[in-house]
Formats: sequence, structure tokens, C-alpha cells
Amino acid sequence: MKKAAISIGDLNGIGFEISIAAHKRTLALCQPIYCVSRVMAQKACELLGRKLPDDYECVGKEGEFNIRAGEIDPVSAAASFESFVQAVDLCEDKEAHSVVTLPISKAAWKSAGIGYRGHTDYLKKRFGAGIMMLGCAKRFVALFTDHIPLSEVADAVRFEALRDFLLSFSPLAPEGTIGVLGLNPHNGDNGAIGSEDSAVAKAVAAANEGLNKERFEGPIAPDAAFTPPMIKRYRTVVALYHDQGLSPLKALFFHESINVTLGIPFARTSVDHGTAFDIAYKGKTPSVSSYLNAVSAAVNGTFHGSAKIL
Amino acid sequence: MKKAAISIGDLNGIGFEISIAAHKRTLALCQPIYCVSRVMAQKACELLGRKLPDDYECVGKEGEFNIRAGEIDPVSAAASFESFVQAVDLCEDKEAHSVVTLPISKAAWKSAGIGYRGHTDYLKKRFGAGIMMLGCAKRFVALFTDHIPLSEVADAVRFEALRDFLLSFSPLAPEGTIGVLGLNPHNGDNGAIGSEDSAVAKAVAAANEGLNKERFEGPIAPDAAFTPPMIKRYRTVVALYHDQGLSPLKALFFHESINVTLGIPFARTSVDHGTAFDIAYKGKTPSVSSYLNAVSAAVNGTFHGSAKIL
Repeated sequence: MKKAAISIGDLNGIGFEISIAAHKRTLALCQPIYCVSRVMAQKACELLGRKLPDDYECVGKEGEFNIRAGEIDPVSAAASFESFVQAVDLCEDKEAHSVVTLPISKAAWKSAGIGYRGHTDYLKKRFGAGIMMLGCAKRFVALFTDHIPLSEVADAVRFEALRDFLLSFSPLAPEGTIGVLGLNPHNGDNGAIGSEDSAVAKAVAAANEGLNKERFEGPIAPDAAFTPPMIKRYRTVVALYHDQGLSPLKALFFHESINVTLGIPFARTSVDHGTAFDIAYKGKTPSVSSYLNAVSAAVNGTFHGSAKIL
Repeated sequence: MKKAAISIGDLNGIGFEISIAAHKRTLALCQPIYCVSRVMAQKACELLGRKLPDDYECVGKEGEFNIRAGEIDPVSAAASFESFVQAVDLCEDKEAHSVVTLPISKAAWKSAGIGYRGHTDYLKKRFGAGIMMLGCAKRFVALFTDHIPLSEVADAVRFEALRDFLLSFSPLAPEGTIGVLGLNPHNGDNGAIGSEDSAVAKAVAAANEGLNKERFEGPIAPDAAFTPPMIKRYRTVVALYHDQGLSPLKALFFHESINVTLGIPFARTSVDHGTAFDIAYKGKTPSVSSYLNAVSAAVNGTFHGSAKIL
């Protein structure tokens, strides 16, 4: 059975509870290696009023600290970073086949002085590659830019950078024609509302020329891209920024979607939600469906460099 | 029966055909006054291979010109502007109760040198007020900014302007608590991804203080705002920019939504789609459901200054 390294996420959030609640079903899919120390796993279980399962394999090395449910805490953040790096190391050392990540707090990472915006940012810097894609069987969304302020998005949408992104994405993407979203309302309405959409059109044309096939179409008006006819027409789209892609995706496919990093040397998937600090350790059992989808996708091995997804 | 002035939209697009296809059902709701000249209505009917109904009341004054199906044309644009202004005049002169607009082309208006970005922009300038709201019974979205380039959005999101917008919107909005969306991914994740969301939080607090009630909540993370729990929680939300609100709205409620201008001296509603130049005069009958919803909403009289909508 394939080994999946589970990055446990921020222990002040809901990640650990998800790993416990879904543990039996996870065992049916793979051999999970939980990157959390036994002492911290036991502490978290005490807070949850649950028993740590005997077959919950803890390999984490982080020291002992107090779990502060729902709080942004640099100590917990540092431990979540350590857990993630250990999971990636296990894959590089061939001791695990894939990494599944539970949610960290980006704000906590910042407070701890961790120089990465999140998991994908770390992977991009470590491997010099990495494309963030979220979705489910009906619709995947690859993000051209991800965790950057909205004020920086328009300037990032340039012809060469987008063309190169499309060329890198094409071999990693699910099969079929891929829609590329425009930037401005109504794609700028022929220049009446901003001019960047002409760069998008140019990048789409240049990528198709480079690939010698009509792999990409666009720009598609952002507010049309997730309507029923467009969902039918494009299984995969490229969004130019985080909320352009993820807000309609989550509107339609809440709790079904997973997050995949494409283009790195192993399969990495993640849940599509955050730490949910507001409900952590409050007796409200969180949904485990996105997590189980992420585990399943990671261990079926079709994510990395494969044209087939799910 | 109430009189609704119908602004016919760009005659090169699908608006006229919608008015004809829905004419009988429109008559059941109101007395429609079509702001199009008889000669142009007849020309359009010829192109569509239909007969102009005898009770289709044309009051437009625009001269004769050639319809160029699906094309951006300053002549047709000028006629669509004239039709719209006539419809607004009819309301000001109390000859009509409300205005329902069929789609114009913003690019065509620009090509014709018309100094307004669209209907809402014209109304805002003419009446010194006007809030653009789209939606249906399950979810309404008011837009803080609308047809501006994405590059200008972040700079427009300032404390005072947003507070004042919320204070103007409150008395016009549907009943219930209103969610206000954040600007950056994950609301900036506590400052890790841009800082504007603290201005949003401040504006929400200041508006509630000014109203002396908890009318607004936010910021809500943009990618969570249209998930099922949030649809349930907020019937109405304020989006900070066009596609933040309209992309997920149209993903969920395609062809049901209408567009309303709040805060002007009469009811004005519109379809939620564009000219659809690609299918105009091609024998593909367009959907009339958004149009009939718009007519119905305009004539039931509950939009202007009313807390009840639909």
C-alpha cells in the first residue's frame, strides 16, 4: 500500500481533528504517515476528548507546546511548518509517495517569521516549479497568480509570463480544451474597461502556436466562466487570480474540491479549506470529504505529470 | 396598468428579439412603451423573419439605419443611447412608471463617443446617485465599484468611500443583515496578503455605528461568500468589484438574475446579460427569463427605496 505523508497543519485549527475523524477511512486508501509528534497528538486528542488510535503512526519531531485553540500563534505555526517540511523530505527520500497537507494559517506563518506565504509558495521555491490547481471532476481551476494582494494582480498579467505559464501548464493539465479567463469586467469590453485583456488574448494565441494545437481558448469573460454552458464546455480553466477562480468554484462545488500542486517531483494534494479557527476544538466535527478526496487523489498517482485527473 | 418604458438596447444585438419574443407575456405584466422607431422595429422584424405585432407600441424617434447583426457600430450605439435617454425622460415626465433596459454594447458606446460607460454610469451622473445591484430572490449583490478596470479596484477601496456607500445602501437594500466582502485572498490573511481589508472592517464598523444597528457584517472572505452556508446566512452582500460579485452569482443563478439601479427617482431594472452579438439574428431564440423577471420587478414597484425586494 502506498505511503502518504500527512502534513498535520496548524494544531490550533481543525486539521488534526480531521486526521483523527477520517483515520479509518484513510487507512483504507493508503498507509498514512502523520508528521506530528506523539506527545502533541496525545495533547490534541485530550482536548478533543478522544483516544489516539494505536495505529495512528506519528513521526513528527516537534517539541511540546500548548495548543491554543483557534489562535494565531508563532509556536504552533513553526510546528506546522516543520511538519510540512518533514512530509516533503519523506517524499524526496522516497520514504513516502505523496504529501497531503492539512491547513496552516498564513498569518501565523508570517507571525513566526516563516519566509513563505504558504505550502505552494514553499514548493515553488524549493523545486523551482509548481502550479496551484483546485477543483473536482466537473471543473478544475489553475491559478496564474495565487496568494498575492489584489492590487498586484493587473500588473502581473503580462503577455510573456502568461504565455510561459500556459506552456508549462499544458502537459500537466487534465485532458481537453482549457479556457483562460480575462482580467477586466466583460474582458475590458474591447478596451473600454482596461487594456490587459489583449495581452491575455495574445498569450493564448502564442501558447497555442508553441504547442501547435488549439489547447487554450480565451479570454473568457470572468463573470461567464462558471455558468452552466461554460462548465460544460471547459473541464479546466486558468484563472488569473485567486478569488476569480476560487469564489465561483466554491460556490458550485463546496467541500468537494481539492488543491493540487502540479509540476513538482511527487504528488501533493490538500484540502480546499482553511484552519477554521472559529470551530476548532469546539465539538463541531468538521467535514472530512475534501480531505478524503485529497488523500484519494494523492495516492492514485495520476496527478503528477499526468493528463488524467480523477 | 402601469407603463414601463423599454429601452431597446443595441439593435445589432439580441435585445429587440427578446422584446418581440416576450411581448405577449410582457403585456400581461404592464403596458410596455418601446423606445424604438416603427421603421427600425420593422427592419429588425424583417431580419428576424417575424411580423411586428400590431399592439407593439413604438415611440422612438431615431432615424433609419442599417442593422449590422453582431457588429460594434457607432450608429447603432447612438440609437441605443437615444432610446435609453428617451425611456428615462418618459419616467421623469411621469409618462412611464419605470425603465427596463435591454443590453447595449459598452464598446459601441465608446466608439460612438458617448461619454458614459453604461446605463448605470449615466443614471449615476444624471441623478447624482445610483447603486448597481444584481440578483434574484436567494441572493442579491450590490456593487461598490462596477465597470472599472481591475487595476483601479484596490485603490478605490477606502474607508470613507466604503462607509458612505454602506450608509446610502442600507435604506435601499433588501431586509436582513448584509455581508460585506473583503478585497484580498482570505481577507488578506491578517495582513499577510495586502492591507486593504482592515479598511473594509473599519467601514463596516463605522456604518453600523452610524445606523446604530448591526446592519452589516464583514469582511467576508471572498471565496467563501457564495458557499451554501453563506448563501443561507446573507440574502444580500456587498461586493467590492464587478466580477467578485457577478461571477459566483451567475455561476449559481444563471439567467434568473436581474440588474437593478437603486436610489434614483424611479424603478429601473435590466437583464443580467449582454448583447450576445454572437447569436444575434441567427435564428437562435435567446432566453427571455431574465427580461421577464426584470419587467416584473420594475412594475411591481417594490424596488425603489423599499426594503422588500421580490
